[in-house]
Amino acid sequence: MTVKIRDVVMVGAGPSALAAAVYTTREDIDTVLYEKGVVGGMAAITDKVDNYPGFAEGIEGLKLAEELQKQAERFGAEIEFGDVTELRDEGDHKVLVVDGEEVKARTVLIATGSDYNKINVPGEAEYYGRGVHYCATCDGAFYRDKKLAVVGGGNSAVQEAIFLTRFASHIDLLVRSEIKASEVLQHELKEFVHEGKITIHKGTTTEEILATDGKVSSVKVNQNGTEKEFKVDGVFVFVGLKPNTQFVEGTLDLDTSGLIKTDAMLETSMPGVFASGDVRSGATMQIASAVGEGASAALAIREYLNELKRKK
Amino acid sequence: MTVKIRDVVMVGAGPSALAAAVYTTREDIDTVLYEKGVVGGMAAITDKVDNYPGFAEGIEGLKLAEELQKQAERFGAEIEFGDVTELRDEGDHKVLVVDGEEVKARTVLIATGSDYNKINVPGEAEYYGRGVHYCATCDGAFYRDKKLAVVGGGNSAVQEAIFLTRFASHIDLLVRSEIKASEVLQHELKEFVHEGKITIHKGTTTEEILATDGKVSSVKVNQNGTEKEFKVDGVFVFVGLKPNTQFVEGTLDLDTSGLIKTDAMLETSMPGVFASGDVRSGATMQIASAVGEGASAALAIREYLNELKRKK
Repeated sequence: MTVKIRDVVMVGAGPSALAAAVYTTREDIDTVLYEKGVVGGMAAITDKVDNYPGFAEGIEGLKLAEELQKQAERFGAEIEFGDVTELRDEGDHKVLVVDGEEVKARTVLIATGSDYNKINVPGEAEYYGRGVHYCATCDGAFYRDKKLAVVGGGNSAVQEAIFLTRFASHIDLLVRSEIKASEVLQHELKEFVHEGKITIHKGTTTEEILATDGKVSSVKVNQNGTEKEFKVDGVFVFVGLKPNTQFVEGTLDLDTSGLIKTDAMLETSMPGVFASGDVRSGATMQIASAVGEGASAALAIREYLNELKRKK
Repeated sequence: MTVKIRDVVMVGAGPSALAAAVYTTREDIDTVLYEKGVVGGMAAITDKVDNYPGFAEGIEGLKLAEELQKQAERFGAEIEFGDVTELRDEGDHKVLVVDGEEVKARTVLIATGSDYNKINVPGEAEYYGRGVHYCATCDGAFYRDKKLAVVGGGNSAVQEAIFLTRFASHIDLLVRSEIKASEVLQHELKEFVHEGKITIHKGTTTEEILATDGKVSSVKVNQNGTEKEFKVDGVFVFVGLKPNTQFVEGTLDLDTSGLIKTDAMLETSMPGVFASGDVRSGATMQIASAVGEGASAALAIREYLNELKRKK
């Protein structure tokens, strides 16, 4: 029995992979996507996407994900559920292990995205996208003249809290122990504290996110043993990012955050293996960029496949 | 009188600049776009866009351009008509000359795109996007099992003619004098000629593109003095690309094609000046990529503006 070698296997079926699949399948490049979670990725579980270009009034995340999926399937993309746990280079093709079975591919696109770390408190999952957020660039603008809590004390928490002052009237910065941001950021932060835009609460553990009529209305904390509650309209959590790259650790070059390094053609350290979207080193964590990179990756994959044919 | 310094001036108002403007204005970054042609750029004059991710059944180019414009304007983007003829670095700000007047800006995004060179024959403009095309990746898939003519004899014409054999049943390659493509491509081309997929017509000048009932039906040529007509369903023209970079020649680093060189953050050789979309060296000439780069450029512009503030 001969095992079919796929032209391209895409790992993940979020916006970046779906965009790439629109391009490859429209050109009759045999394409399969393996997704272990939700088709449409993080977009699919986002309430409203206001900044994906092309929708004047914004679009529901789920609706955008559905459109992307239908578009890729219209041209012939196969979307399968499966967990990719291994990637190997075998010279003229790659081998992926999907749910324990080997799949062969001439090229691979890794577009598994990154997950935001959670604080795992009651209310966090329930109000995700409707009061609980992990991306200030995406959702900050929904909080003009509102009160926010920001959870975290590292560089990204401080940077994003400062950024959110463009919109929010006041921010409670909830820091578990001490602020661990760079000196420059701490210096900048002080100005906002001085202006009364940000209040820092050190030694503060977030315990629960509470809502009234389905909308986030306050956050319950424990500050050095004392229970407190802050009235806020939204909570932004910045406690790190986990790129979905465990299955290629030791196989592909990753940066210090665990994101996959690529060259200008989006090719990784393994020839014929490409990466795009939120899993790529330098990613902006924006759907527009992920989609754009997906399209560019598809063209690079086409070129790679053409080169393979020429070599025969 | 003090002249206002704009946060960001965008040159061009095609998909890439409009996407960037959605991002900058949504964060209250003061943004003006100068367009000398059509708002929405090449997208606006494209009949149907089938591969912009997010529209399962495709979308009319004009409709997509309108959505992009409305979305940017919803957040406060100012779109002005004006021809930018000069860009100068004056240390803490840049000066642009727009219709003879000076405009000051802290940052600049150049997203003026590139124009496809035309052959300037009757029928070419009339049937643009409806039988006359300049991008095989964009429009090739509309010609499954159809007959095509390809005009040109350089690398891109030969490469794209070969690519179009995925879709078309037969291609007439109309070459003014001799084929001037690389040896590798010429060698590959021979195989397709041998298989009867491509017929090369040397010494052939395209004279007119004819239509029946509003659809392209044939192309009239003059081959070494003899008039001929080829029945085709579409004509693809590949006679070069002209990046809209005349106004920065000698000011910014350009590649050999005249496209603007950028680093990974999309910054050009002049600090604070960024480039995105079809005018950028390495561009894929795809709306999705242009839009993605616009979003990424906006985030880089935000960072640059933050740095400026910190330095004060």
